[in-house]
Amino acid sequence: MVQGTLYIVSAPSGAGKSSLIQALLKTQPAYDIRVSVSHTTRGARPGENHGEHYYFIPADEFRQMIKEDAFLEHAEVFGNYYGTSRPAIEKVLAQGIDVFLDIDWQGARQVREKMPQARSIFILPPSHEELKRRLHGRGQDSDEVIAQRMMKAVSEMSHYDEYNYLIINDDFETALQDLRTIIRAERLRTGRQKLRHDALISKLLAD
Amino acid sequence: MVQGTLYIVSAPSGAGKSSLIQALLKTQPAYDIRVSVSHTTRGARPGENHGEHYYFIPADEFRQMIKEDAFLEHAEVFGNYYGTSRPAIEKVLAQGIDVFLDIDWQGARQVREKMPQARSIFILPPSHEELKRRLHGRGQDSDEVIAQRMMKAVSEMSHYDEYNYLIINDDFETALQDLRTIIRAERLRTGRQKLRHDALISKLLAD
Ligand SMILES: Nc1nc2c(ncn2[C@@H]2O[C@H](COP(=O)(O)OP(=O)(O)O)[C@@H](O)[C@H]2O)c(=O)[nH]1
Ligand SMILES: Nc1nc2c(ncn2[C@@H]2O[C@H](COP(=O)(O)OP(=O)(O)O)[C@@H](O)[C@H]2O)c(=O)[nH]1
Repeated sequence: MVQGTLYIVSAPSGAGKSSLIQALLKTQPAYDIRVSVSHTTRGARPGENHGEHYYFIPADEFRQMIKEDAFLEHAEVFGNYYGTSRPAIEKVLAQGIDVFLDIDWQGARQVREKMPQARSIFILPPSHEELKRRLHGRGQDSDEVIAQRMMKAVSEMSHYDEYNYLIINDDFETALQDLRTIIRAERLRTGRQKLRHDALISKLLAD
Repeated sequence: MVQGTLYIVSAPSGAGKSSLIQALLKTQPAYDIRVSVSHTTRGARPGENHGEHYYFIPADEFRQMIKEDAFLEHAEVFGNYYGTSRPAIEKVLAQGIDVFLDIDWQGARQVREKMPQARSIFILPPSHEELKRRLHGRGQDSDEVIAQRMMKAVSEMSHYDEYNYLIINDDFETALQDLRTIIRAERLRTGRQKLRHDALISKLLAD
């Protein structure tokens, strides 16, 4: 069976990462690419489904999973735990499905350590002005809040060169095409093609 | 200045490698991708131009270049020398142009050793029957000659997994698209994007 590829995708907020991943999933059948579903200890909000938005689990279960080294990475955010379950991801990869992991540079580092075969993609906004504009959001936030967001974005961006690929989200369709190009090229790597075309290769070399 | 990428392309004869490379060049502007021009000691045939089909040089000059370690790889074929000049290739790469190197697995090994950053692509025919059919050519060769060609093809193919990428040339247009996909994805690698978007990145991180 051909293993799927694990993709780590990071970006500063305002780079358009979520829209790109959503658009990618819409044009790609579900058995082909999937976004990883995280585990969390926070409660489900109205409209959120277990196994779709998150796996909602109690804190003691989460701590047990940490003990068992079941997380590729995890973090505490605003008093709740969030983490990426290794068995959950490996189950999907084993079906030949590529998995997208939407995490920040710190999570990316942890995942790379545990799964060195993961490929990573960083997404940058097209310009400083555009980033600022996007971080302003609906214009209802104070200058201080926006300055803080900008600082966080710059801190995230400073790690772009730890990633295998770099996409500039200037034109959305081009950036989406770039994402698809990377996935297609990774599927052309010999290791993956070898498994996919196993029968053909054996036959060709039999002579 | 952004460096071009060196691509090593190998295939058994009958896999359609030359047609694919020719088609690739036709749809890609010349300042973007070029095929490496080899040096040889054999005489030019009618219609062959120095610097286009080969660099035709005398044997003592060739031997001098070997001494100076000017070849990424070289071989003797039917009493003539053939080789890939390192300075010639590096000059083109330095202009940001990707260079395609059409060589066999033995040459590929030599090049990889001297330029580990080179990317390599192997092309396979779609089936054993189709390979046989293609090796038959215009049907004017003896069974023995064809059997020899087949043996040589199998020996070449047995090295496919030393290459980064594997393309199956079943449908020509798909294989051509695969070739383009690989080139585009390689251009999205962080190292290359970093140089290309140097100004943007400095600006984004300045804050
Ligand atoms: N490290 C890590 N962080 C996560 C994971 N899942 C979600 N987060 C982060 O947790 C934070 C809070 O997420 P959530 O509770 O859904 O709130 P919201 O995204 O602000 O609506 C966000 O910054 C997420 O990026 C995970 O699996 N690992
Ligand atoms: N190792 C190596 N072989 C080469 C090079 N250039 C050409 N050859 C090989 O030399 C052989 C003879 O080439 P050539 O004289 O053009 O004859 P033809 O290709 O049979 O028409 C072919 O098998 C080529 O693949 C090179 O730069 N390095």
